[in-house]
Amino acid sequence: MQYKSRFTKPDGRTLLLYSRRPIDANIVATSPSPTPVSLEGSHMRWHPLRGEWVAYARHRQNRTFLPPKEFNPLAPTVNPEFPTELPQGDYDVAVFENMFPTLSEKAVPPPQIPGVETYPALGVCEVVVFTKDPTMSLGRLPLDHIQLLLEVWGDRTREIGARADIKYVMPFENRGVEVGVTLHHPHGQIYAYPFVPPVPARENAQQLAYYEKNGTGLLASFIEREIRERMRLIYEGPHAVAFVPACARYPYEVWVAPKRAVPTMDRLEEHERADLARALKTVLLKFDALWSRPFPYLMTFHQAPTDGREHPESHFYLEFSPPYRSSDRLKFLAGTELGAGLFANDSLPEDKARELQGVEVTFE
Amino acid sequence: MQYKSRFTKPDGRTLLLYSRRPIDANIVATSPSPTPVSLEGSHMRWHPLRGEWVAYARHRQNRTFLPPKEFNPLAPTVNPEFPTELPQGDYDVAVFENMFPTLSEKAVPPPQIPGVETYPALGVCEVVVFTKDPTMSLGRLPLDHIQLLLEVWGDRTREIGARADIKYVMPFENRGVEVGVTLHHPHGQIYAYPFVPPVPARENAQQLAYYEKNGTGLLASFIEREIRERMRLIYEGPHAVAFVPACARYPYEVWVAPKRAVPTMDRLEEHERADLARALKTVLLKFDALWSRPFPYLMTFHQAPTDGREHPESHFYLEFSPPYRSSDRLKFLAGTELGAGLFANDSLPEDKARELQGVEVTFE
Repeated sequence: MQYKSRFTKPDGRTLLLYSRRPIDANIVATSPSPTPVSLEGSHMRWHPLRGEWVAYARHRQNRTFLPPKEFNPLAPTVNPEFPTELPQGDYDVAVFENMFPTLSEKAVPPPQIPGVETYPALGVCEVVVFTKDPTMSLGRLPLDHIQLLLEVWGDRTREIGARADIKYVMPFENRGVEVGVTLHHPHGQIYAYPFVPPVPARENAQQLAYYEKNGTGLLASFIEREIRERMRLIYEGPHAVAFVPACARYPYEVWVAPKRAVPTMDRLEEHERADLARALKTVLLKFDALWSRPFPYLMTFHQAPTDGREHPESHFYLEFSPPYRSSDRLKFLAGTELGAGLFANDSLPEDKARELQGVEVTFE
Repeated sequence: MQYKSRFTKPDGRTLLLYSRRPIDANIVATSPSPTPVSLEGSHMRWHPLRGEWVAYARHRQNRTFLPPKEFNPLAPTVNPEFPTELPQGDYDVAVFENMFPTLSEKAVPPPQIPGVETYPALGVCEVVVFTKDPTMSLGRLPLDHIQLLLEVWGDRTREIGARADIKYVMPFENRGVEVGVTLHHPHGQIYAYPFVPPVPARENAQQLAYYEKNGTGLLASFIEREIRERMRLIYEGPHAVAFVPACARYPYEVWVAPKRAVPTMDRLEEHERADLARALKTVLLKFDALWSRPFPYLMTFHQAPTDGREHPESHFYLEFSPPYRSSDRLKFLAGTELGAGLFANDSLPEDKARELQGVEVTFE
């Protein structure tokens, strides 16, 4: 970790600042609202047919606070009359609890519903502001800033994952109006769950079965094959790799991973983070250069559960699920994807990889 | 079945016409293309981390045929110079193989990819044109026309499901530009799979476990509870019911089901289909009346596998997943839904049910 300081916002939420330089202890945390948002009514219900929990967060509709039109809650506060989520001062990355969390450690007791299993909406929802500069993007940040961000995600995974009531930590970024983003200041989110949610539960079960049968990692073998074949490779460095996976569900799907099977981000070594930052920056710059415009995506982090057990079978990776299938056509998830769970991809991973390989990007 | 006739299109595909009146045997099947579309390159690949198949259908990009601007391929042919998918003549519903199928019984052998398990893109993709009238909608069709459609879906389930290589049949409708629809003529699709895909596999496993433990159906118990509580009910007739489920993942999610546990649609009795048609029409008219405009949705059919076994645990139902969370806000599937599989719903099922209950609709 480089520099990290903890502050408390006027409404009681925690603010964490991370920086490549020492952080002024006199920074004053701000909040758009002076009082905590009520979590009344939030809870989870069991979906017996799908065998999964559904979270209800009615309070997320009640966003009463009415800022001036151009108000950016993720930029550092300028006018103290309209405080934002970020204080003034010298720092690189800010992390704070979401003002309208779906899941929270302050979750209220769930309602009693006859015949329906309920659970408090326990967990963590944090916002990660990548930079103070609203005109920036993750991919255009300097390498050492991206490397710091990888450290931040690792720090959050370690700290949140250490809680006895948290079993899974998932950082992600939604980018672009096409995936529903309304705040364009570069930022991501972290959701942490009191159980292992269905998607990582399935992935971890698959990895465990493979590990028990073969004694090696499923994703490590997958990566070795991609490196050997090269045709879908987007980046290869000494410790990290990026590629369109042979089984891509989305046309421009890309996975970014360390070569070594690291179960969670906090276990990455300094040199692995450095190379992973290069891999990530390469992919992001290629995406934006492909059609000379910001490329929307959903970026999700796949890690091992934080259940206190070792997970030698698990291999941390980053998955990009971009919504476009060509420059002017969106891929919609419809009948077969959402109803059945079989993705239909109109393009071959090899063709999309070639497109991305053909995009030249340079940085240093 | 009322009336059903089988024809062959010029490009070799099958056309089925269904009607409440006898069908003229001299109808001549048409096709926008005189020759079959090549399925070259289509195949499936195994996604080892998610443990599911992904379908590749590159040929779906090559839609070479360039019709006049206002050409509607799903309306009956008017100008023989530009034949559509539908012939002229007297009939109510038309079903034909998709010209650009993701899955097909004519699937080509899959490519050999080192280290990647592949499979032919076997299956069935059919288009179901609900009516010849392009200005109609499913909900505005007369009750006996909707009832015929339920019979058609049952007929397709029975006929396609009887094939030894088909394990699951899923009819669905995508409605509205919001879910990616480009052809607005009222129609749905049927996908049939050579295996039970992940979503129904999970639902059927849940139902089987419940049935083995309790000796009654999971969905039957769920429905009994919804009927008892009434607060989320949208329709109740003698044999069918519609409700916002207590565990709704989408704000305006609605399930429509027969009260009796019928594993597949072909097992419905005439009186059940009649009441199910009323339930379906009620929901659809309420949706469109809610904001006085066509209401977009994904409608998926959940049935038992067609694996030749009896499925007393399985209960057919219809699920609506509308993309709106309020009249001017879409619900996007993002980080927590797609990355983790935990849906976050900003509204309570009880509140959305009340909205829909408050919408008056009449028909006969």
